Amino acid sequence: MFERITRLRNQEPLVHNITNVVVTNFTANGLYALGASPVMAYAKEEVAEMAQIAGAVVLNIGTLTEDQIEAMIIAGKSANQNGVPVVLDPVGAGATTYRTSTARNILEKVDVSLLRGNAAEVSNVVGEQIAMKGVDSGNIQGNHIDLAQKAAELFQCTVVITGQTDVISNGEDTYTVSNGHSLLTKVTGTGCLLSSVIGAFLAIDQNHIHAAVVAVSLYGIAAEKAAQKAGTNEPGRFQMEFLNELAKLNETDGPLAKINHLQKEAHHDRL
Amino acid sequence: MFERITRLRNQEPLVHNITNVVVTNFTANGLYALGASPVMAYAKEEVAEMAQIAGAVVLNIGTLTEDQIEAMIIAGKSANQNGVPVVLDPVGAGATTYRTSTARNILEKVDVSLLRGNAAEVSNVVGEQIAMKGVDSGNIQGNHIDLAQKAAELFQCTVVITGQTDVISNGEDTYTVSNGHSLLTKVTGTGCLLSSVIGAFLAIDQNHIHAAVVAVSLYGIAAEKAAQKAGTNEPGRFQMEFLNELAKLNETDGPLAKINHLQKEAHHDRL
Amino acid sequence: MFERITRLRNQEPLVHNITNVVVTNFTANGLYALGASPVMAYAKEEVAEMAQIAGAVVLNIGTLTEDQIEAMIIAGKSANQNGVPVVLDPVGAGATTYRTSTARNILEKVDVSLLRGNAAEVSNVVGEQIAMKGVDSGNIQGNHIDLAQKAAELFQCTVVITGQTDVISNGEDTYTVSNGHSLLTKVTGTGCLLSSVIGAFLAIDQNHIHAAVVAVSLYGIAAEKAAQKAGTNEPGRFQMEFLNELAKLNETDGPLAKINHLQKEAHHDRL
Repeated sequence: MFERITRLRNQEPLVHNITNVVVTNFTANGLYALGASPVMAYAKEEVAEMAQIAGAVVLNIGTLTEDQIEAMIIAGKSANQNGVPVVLDPVGAGATTYRTSTARNILEKVDVSLLRGNAAEVSNVVGEQIAMKGVDSGNIQGNHIDLAQKAAELFQCTVVITGQTDVISNGEDTYTVSNGHSLLTKVTGTGCLLSSVIGAFLAIDQNHIHAAVVAVSLYGIAAEKAAQKAGTNEPGRFQMEFLNELAKLNETDGPLAKINHLQKEAHHDRL
Repeated sequence: MFERITRLRNQEPLVHNITNVVVTNFTANGLYALGASPVMAYAKEEVAEMAQIAGAVVLNIGTLTEDQIEAMIIAGKSANQNGVPVVLDPVGAGATTYRTSTARNILEKVDVSLLRGNAAEVSNVVGEQIAMKGVDSGNIQGNHIDLAQKAAELFQCTVVITGQTDVISNGEDTYTVSNGHSLLTKVTGTGCLLSSVIGAFLAIDQNHIHAAVVAVSLYGIAAEKAAQKAGTNEPGRFQMEFLNELAKLNETDGPLAKINHLQKEAHHDRL
Repeated sequence: MFERITRLRNQEPLVHNITNVVVTNFTANGLYALGASPVMAYAKEEVAEMAQIAGAVVLNIGTLTEDQIEAMIIAGKSANQNGVPVVLDPVGAGATTYRTSTARNILEKVDVSLLRGNAAEVSNVVGEQIAMKGVDSGNIQGNHIDLAQKAAELFQCTVVITGQTDVISNGEDTYTVSNGHSLLTKVTGTGCLLSSVIGAFLAIDQNHIHAAVVAVSLYGIAAEKAAQKAGTNEPGRFQMEFLNELAKLNETDGPLAKINHLQKEAHHDRL
């Protein structure tokens, strides 16, 4: 599975991001480090044209404006018409009514290939409070799997719920990934960049769930390596080392992956 | 006083920033490093809701648009109605008429808890050229104290004037802080981030002047430590180390503080 | 020629950037590191006033909006009226119709002093596909020289085409510069920052072509030094070291310059 990183570097897919103002620079640098080719284009006059030539389109609602929502829908529809996969990152859905309704609005008007958020964001988009009920981490984990499967069925797409353990599901198949490091939560935009990195892997691969599992795992592996170089309390150093490690990822990193494929029945038994 | 940093880390206050496009990433990473929880939300459709759940709202006019000014006033009024402290950073007031009048417009419509700028910015907002008259640094210093006190009385808020020596006044009480390092002036957004860091301390503390004094002093201490690690001419390295040092701040740093409490009468004698 | 870097540090020219959301932070930090004074101001209510007091205005179309285009034209005209040099960076011209037409629109309405782009961008603005015909690098190089001279004559300005070898021409005089490092292509905004750095040098120098040649060469020298400190596959580290090296540039770096002055006739012979 991990030969995908080599393929990605050879193909240098163009990833068209319509993203928030906090993370644009980090997203572009992360995609460059990975070996993809980032472009940010937001004007409604140009997004259809840009989405058409892109390998993937990533829509991120972190800092919304009415103009940007309009541009996202135009870009998403253009991507749909041209067979370009679309990733949606519903940043902060649930924090304000506006974000929740915008995420749903996009999901209604655009065929989203993959939805990536934390459990709170995804459950708010779904409209259920599943993931928020439990306080015990084991229980929450179970809820995340349910939530990912429910969201995947509802929106007919692949869903990635990130957390201490990440869950990836397309409704049929479900995986968990346990790579990563807590320093990722001390650097802004690491979730947003992951959405764009997943976009880069979707751009080179029809098998969206495998592409997403590899992307999530490699991303976490880069974080683990970066954390070994930075001190435990050095978010500035970690950010720099993380970009370095994204650039150094290669297919020999496969053995570091912590991927678990859930059997649908086995899982239902377990719950 | 410095137990506040521990309290802040435990409470992880949500700081709602409406800030300029130059510093969003650095502001978010600085707040994360400190132990606060940053959020950027600018749409007028959502800012009232976000300000309501925030621990503090920080308004920064560094790159203005009409939409953003409208959002700032909505967010500020929502914060006022919900008892959430508001910090205003009048970036570039005096450089253009538009910035000066926008800063005054916000101060008129929103009850600002704390105003933070350099002497030129604050004096332009006040409408007097006090700080600009002197060229001798001792004299300027005296002017900064006058200016801070006058601004505090005029706007009925706490005022922080940053410079080689920082002045903090609420009109009654006045402090100077001499921590910091000249490399702070070689990295963009260090003033803006300080405004947001002060916001994080106001979020956990009713005593605004003490909170601001501690915030300004700790911020300077982190800069001093970062400068010891970076070379004297290494702004790139300094920026990284500064984020690390914000994350490493703790209450045992108290003895490094260089804080001076001015007696109102003594000060008037001195002038 | 390289005494200009000392002069720049002494004068600290104010560079007014209207630039894209991806690179604002890096641009500001790069200009600070160099010794210039960056300002970003985008509101149409203030850009004329800001451009008037600036040493140079840099217009960058990387993430366009209609409001920003309007602001760019107002700022450009104000700069023209006040004798302030204007740099245009036509990011992505050719990638979408909107970008190409916006770049041309600005060139029509504003007297641009210097145009900086890669060969694809400049050829699209010119409206010819010269640089895109060849695939052999020697041939492309020849085409870049032709293209720079043609663009310089067409727009009556200095043109900088960056690539493995950079070409600088004002139609009469043409130079090539071979400093730089491939890691520059792995960090977002290095082209945009170069445009702003050139702006800083134009601000202190009536001789635009000499100023541009020195700026391009010194920028490449800083990259070469930064690459010696970073590993070959460390874009995160490179970005940090590059800011450090911009701060450390000085006139004794002259001997590292790889500048070639083309004789007009000799060049035509060669072609």
